[in-house]
Amino acid sequence: MKRLIALLIGAITLTVPALAQTTGVPASTNIPGQKYPQILPDNRVVFRVKAPDARKLQIDLMKKYDMVKDTSGFWTVTTEPVGEGFHYYSLIADGIAICDPASQTFYGMGRMASGIDIPDKDMDYYQPKNVPHGQVRSVNYYSEMTKAWRRANVYTPAGYDENPKKRYPVLYLQHGSGEDETGWPTQGKMDMILDNLIAEGKATPMIVVMERGYATDPTRPVSTTASGPASMNSNVFPEVLVKEVIPMIDKSFRTLTDRDNRAMAGLSMGGFQTFQTTMTNLDKFAYIGGFSGAGRLQPGADIKQAYDGALADPDAFNKKMKVVYVSIGTKEPERMYTGVKGFHEALDKAGIRHVYYESPGTLHEWQTWRRSLRQYASLIFKK
Amino acid sequence: MKRLIALLIGAITLTVPALAQTTGVPASTNIPGQKYPQILPDNRVVFRVKAPDARKLQIDLMKKYDMVKDTSGFWTVTTEPVGEGFHYYSLIADGIAICDPASQTFYGMGRMASGIDIPDKDMDYYQPKNVPHGQVRSVNYYSEMTKAWRRANVYTPAGYDENPKKRYPVLYLQHGSGEDETGWPTQGKMDMILDNLIAEGKATPMIVVMERGYATDPTRPVSTTASGPASMNSNVFPEVLVKEVIPMIDKSFRTLTDRDNRAMAGLSMGGFQTFQTTMTNLDKFAYIGGFSGAGRLQPGADIKQAYDGALADPDAFNKKMKVVYVSIGTKEPERMYTGVKGFHEALDKAGIRHVYYESPGTLHEWQTWRRSLRQYASLIFKK
Repeated sequence: MKRLIALLIGAITLTVPALAQTTGVPASTNIPGQKYPQILPDNRVVFRVKAPDARKLQIDLMKKYDMVKDTSGFWTVTTEPVGEGFHYYSLIADGIAICDPASQTFYGMGRMASGIDIPDKDMDYYQPKNVPHGQVRSVNYYSEMTKAWRRANVYTPAGYDENPKKRYPVLYLQHGSGEDETGWPTQGKMDMILDNLIAEGKATPMIVVMERGYATDPTRPVSTTASGPASMNSNVFPEVLVKEVIPMIDKSFRTLTDRDNRAMAGLSMGGFQTFQTTMTNLDKFAYIGGFSGAGRLQPGADIKQAYDGALADPDAFNKKMKVVYVSIGTKEPERMYTGVKGFHEALDKAGIRHVYYESPGTLHEWQTWRRSLRQYASLIFKK
Repeated sequence: MKRLIALLIGAITLTVPALAQTTGVPASTNIPGQKYPQILPDNRVVFRVKAPDARKLQIDLMKKYDMVKDTSGFWTVTTEPVGEGFHYYSLIADGIAICDPASQTFYGMGRMASGIDIPDKDMDYYQPKNVPHGQVRSVNYYSEMTKAWRRANVYTPAGYDENPKKRYPVLYLQHGSGEDETGWPTQGKMDMILDNLIAEGKATPMIVVMERGYATDPTRPVSTTASGPASMNSNVFPEVLVKEVIPMIDKSFRTLTDRDNRAMAGLSMGGFQTFQTTMTNLDKFAYIGGFSGAGRLQPGADIKQAYDGALADPDAFNKKMKVVYVSIGTKEPERMYTGVKGFHEALDKAGIRHVYYESPGTLHEWQTWRRSLRQYASLIFKK
């Protein structure tokens, strides 16, 4: 009898992991109506794909997990606990990294990718709430410099249409490498972040312009020797932004056009682009933000020599620039963490006033950048 | 020697198909920078996927094509000539229908799907041109009836911001089953169609609202016996549109709010929803459009009994409704073609004035619907 009870208890214990799985909730990033992927209370994720004929399936989310097929043709796997925030992931079928058919897709990794958003304890600031909402507008325009149609997504704050005489400051906000103008409004939830900050009175109502970001002049040869992504070699993005995008935005929207009302920020590659653009156009921008990507400084280089000497006179620079913001996630790859922290230390050493933020426990991913935007947007355009 | 020449000629002839493939152009629907899929001059499509470890790959575009692997791990296939316009397609790997990593993705087929847009001889009307451009705005709002946040894409015509006192008529334009509010602005190119029509003076500047379309009341049980997609059974879309979306739009945008300035149209399921909504709200809409989906009539049923007798008095109906528009592609599946044509014939027989259009050579796909929108938008809101 004791043995039977022990066996029963054993059986009950053995079923706990299976039961635990049923307490998961479908991820917010799923195709509407799809029950999987599911997020368990401890942030493990259960993936499930129907593929009776498949030979081998894996999920690639930080690391690769082998899926296991049941008798009804469903493949499942439960991952280890996954960090809070948004992660791109792939389903690997027949050796190809592809999208999970159950997930919405996001332009990242240089292609459409699956994504999963793990709820954060501190996620209230990017939830939709019963507050006035802005709009994200898709704007098409022809670029003479790149001889191509380009697109920007433009956030206009709540009240923009109702106050037809009011003019607004503008933040130019760039995505990272392999992403595009959909990154900030989709993965980044920038509209919710701004709607909530503005409703709480913590940010000044502003227009936010998210541009395509990749810009090559077809008449210039592409360098094949320079380091970095090909898109950055024959890159004319700073010129396209300053000479084409800003005038187009100032014409199409009710903007305040002086430098005190123009900011720029970006994540990763977009952070480099921000420094590349603003440091050579200090007459046009009064606020600079680099999230997980900031100025570039070779080891041992003198920051006062960088950007044609823009930082050579710290007092003059500090007087001119209203906010310089640099951030990094504490769990980002060593090379990135060291690079951004090193730039911050060089700014400190040179006496350049700036805000430095380390996002606790986050990777080179959108949770670092959502937190950075929340801070940066609340610092800029203050009287 | 003659034999050698014959062999050489044979070899040259044999290489022609390979040479012909190099004259293809990357599809406009590719991820930027991707060279494949390529469209050949005769509308055959060359697909190419790198997958050294794959066992079997197929492309599913109207029919299934087996891909063939070369020694460098690339799988390729050239399809038969494909009809003009936009087609969803899948890559089949390990028995799962998935997205081609080289394609942009489109919400269709109830999931994110690959798509390819074959240029049409008559495609000028949906190309971006040097004309004033409208904007497509993403609008989030909370729906009390469905207890959920919903999204609409709203097109505002060129000049909307510059004329802050001007009010505009509104077209409610719905997508089909398995698609969502991104269908019309992305696959449908509705912004280009409207920009060009308005610039040519062929359409009245109008606001176009493209709503999510799926709406279920969580307090109502889902019928499992009714026919049609589940989303249509416990469907409260007509009520959500009339009681929540229209008031929200009339509050957020400068609309003309009388029935003479409100139209509705939709494709396939969206066409059924249009008739379902407008025929029971004739006091709110003066224009009805069904593209590849219109009113529902059982065989042998009397049209005068349909929609609670809305069509019982043809003269009164003709006087009240300004435009009723019904269209179908000539190559659509027999059941759909017969259904829509039958509805048109029943309208004719009952003396209900309407415009009937058959799109030559097009399927139950976006080319039929782009052409229909072009026509319909030029018919409505005329004084």
